Amino acid sequence: MFEARLLKASLLKKILEPIKDLVDSANFDCSPVGISLQAMDSTHVTLITLLLRSDGFDSYNCDRSLSLGLSLVSLNKILKCAGNDDFLTIKARDEADTVTFVFESPKSDRISDFEVKLLELKNDQYNIRDSDYSAVVKMPSAELQRICRDLSIMGENVTITANKEGVKFSVSGDSGSGNITVRPTTDTEADLATTIESKEPVVLSFALKFLSNFTKATPLSPTVKLTISETDPIVIEYKIDDIGYLRFFLAPKMD
Amino acid sequence: MFEARLLKASLLKKILEPIKDLVDSANFDCSPVGISLQAMDSTHVTLITLLLRSDGFDSYNCDRSLSLGLSLVSLNKILKCAGNDDFLTIKARDEADTVTFVFESPKSDRISDFEVKLLELKNDQYNIRDSDYSAVVKMPSAELQRICRDLSIMGENVTITANKEGVKFSVSGDSGSGNITVRPTTDTEADLATTIESKEPVVLSFALKFLSNFTKATPLSPTVKLTISETDPIVIEYKIDDIGYLRFFLAPKMD
Amino acid sequence: MFEARLLKASLLKKILEPIKDLVDSANFDCSPVGISLQAMDSTHVTLITLLLRSDGFDSYNCDRSLSLGLSLVSLNKILKCAGNDDFLTIKARDEADTVTFVFESPKSDRISDFEVKLLELKNDQYNIRDSDYSAVVKMPSAELQRICRDLSIMGENVTITANKEGVKFSVSGDSGSGNITVRPTTDTEADLATTIESKEPVVLSFALKFLSNFTKATPLSPTVKLTISETDPIVIEYKIDDIGYLRFFLAPKMD
Repeated sequence: MFEARLLKASLLKKILEPIKDLVDSANFDCSPVGISLQAMDSTHVTLITLLLRSDGFDSYNCDRSLSLGLSLVSLNKILKCAGNDDFLTIKARDEADTVTFVFESPKSDRISDFEVKLLELKNDQYNIRDSDYSAVVKMPSAELQRICRDLSIMGENVTITANKEGVKFSVSGDSGSGNITVRPTTDTEADLATTIESKEPVVLSFALKFLSNFTKATPLSPTVKLTISETDPIVIEYKIDDIGYLRFFLAPKMD
Repeated sequence: MFEARLLKASLLKKILEPIKDLVDSANFDCSPVGISLQAMDSTHVTLITLLLRSDGFDSYNCDRSLSLGLSLVSLNKILKCAGNDDFLTIKARDEADTVTFVFESPKSDRISDFEVKLLELKNDQYNIRDSDYSAVVKMPSAELQRICRDLSIMGENVTITANKEGVKFSVSGDSGSGNITVRPTTDTEADLATTIESKEPVVLSFALKFLSNFTKATPLSPTVKLTISETDPIVIEYKIDDIGYLRFFLAPKMD
Repeated sequence: MFEARLLKASLLKKILEPIKDLVDSANFDCSPVGISLQAMDSTHVTLITLLLRSDGFDSYNCDRSLSLGLSLVSLNKILKCAGNDDFLTIKARDEADTVTFVFESPKSDRISDFEVKLLELKNDQYNIRDSDYSAVVKMPSAELQRICRDLSIMGENVTITANKEGVKFSVSGDSGSGNITVRPTTDTEADLATTIESKEPVVLSFALKFLSNFTKATPLSPTVKLTISETDPIVIEYKIDDIGYLRFFLAPKMD
């Protein structure tokens, strides 16, 4: 028997938003520790990992580990029926072939339950090594979203140049070429400050299409962390309150 | 000579909104008592009735009854030219083949008049008997709109189960199946309370497409009344302030 | 060397909005006096003129006159990367084949620079004579925008009838015919008053498509001035703060 309760159904909506356009279906691995997910997009260019720790839930019961294989298309349709302030309970019996999502309005005058068929999905596990980073950038997530959206208008790829002085996002296309440079800010409110931890200057290019998609996770967190390395995929991490994180790994473009 | 004046042109806009996608043209029957309309959608599945009592108008002059056959497509275009706070006057001379709509801005600095050709339409009258209901549900209109919108994502038909304990809206589709249950609320403000008057439990299915269309009438009234019967079409009624009502009749789906 | 700085990048966005759908590319003529532009739409029905006086800029340096031939499509893409509150600097070296747009966020934590290739464009100069007007109408720009939008729903052409009593905008189409009449207002705040200076009554017809496009300039100014003449194109003028103006010239429709 698995049963987990979140005080805000909107959290699951926000998590699904940046994932659903990259991945059709995925295993939500439920264990006493929490819920985790690992999934690659269909073109095998980006890897998504999610962790929701059990202690971050309002209540959490998981006798033994189980994998909930879900169509993200179906899950998305169901979540559209949840009010943002609804409580969400996820329920699955052992050996069951369905999972139930229950939404309760805060005033308890409306209760909705949706049942979805579970899918049998291969459970690929990816070994993710702790990369030896060249630069770690922490910046407002809305700022990264805006930069990706703006530069997408002008070209398909972005070159990220990071050093102590700042992070430069460069694009080149038919309309011209451009750079947006973000500088460290020490004076603003700590939460939204841009900080750069740089071991060595680094220059890498990425497909804007994927970066833009990742930034749909912006509502999850006011800040985003970019871990940039010459030898490993870039890691874009959105912290999820006190409960966990959503991470995107993207391999750089080769010249 | 017919001349009727409303203090808010927006009222006619709101009335037209849920009708115009179901019916192309209709007779507005004007008499000393008021304006009434009866129309079936082109597939003859749903019947719409409208009543605007003469005493609800700011001024109302109707010497003798006349039928204004109007293209709702044209009327809708004309109403788009009215400000929501404009005064609206509808004018038709006896035996005339046009009707004039006059919009005046509250500050009187803009006055618009639009003339539309009248259509010769068959004047079908439908006998609507007072049905012996199984359940009468009064609920917030925004809540019904939301339920129809949400469930439409998951399937084409909704099954409504009503009894003393609550009203359950159920849907089933490729993504899974779900239920939204609304319970009576006695404690909230009387105006927006959900109340259920149940003579006998009832279970009926309806096409969500039509129900969703009806709920475009939501801006007309904060509440909506559903009269459900095993032997008659469901009646969805929106009260229009102190002036009348807009009602939709929909036959249930057979198994 | 040319370098001009505006405190609001949004100003250039607002100027481009009504121009970009009419003209693909245009010369921005820069001289010590300021920046000016003259362009005809591809169908040669409407002429656009723009003036931005040098003293309206935050800083302005122009040693000798030069013409910056720009693709408005490219310029529009670049301007989408500017925040509305960003400072904007336009830079071009003498004999250069590119121009650079620099956007700085007010907090200086983000700086963007975009380089666009210059185009070699023919430099047509149009002689615009001061027309002997029949009527000059000053009215709220939002009101003109609304009238054009509303009437576009009903027909393709508008007939403007102006005399001392008011300005009547008339349209006729399949749905019916209509008139919107705007009257002079002496009592409201002077800034948004509608005033009519009429030498002689005038009746002229225009393509609504063009008028509607011009009214995309509404965010530039709370009021708009229409100079109407029997013998010359109508002139629709939007003042741009203390820095200049944007004018549209449109020939009337012949019967």
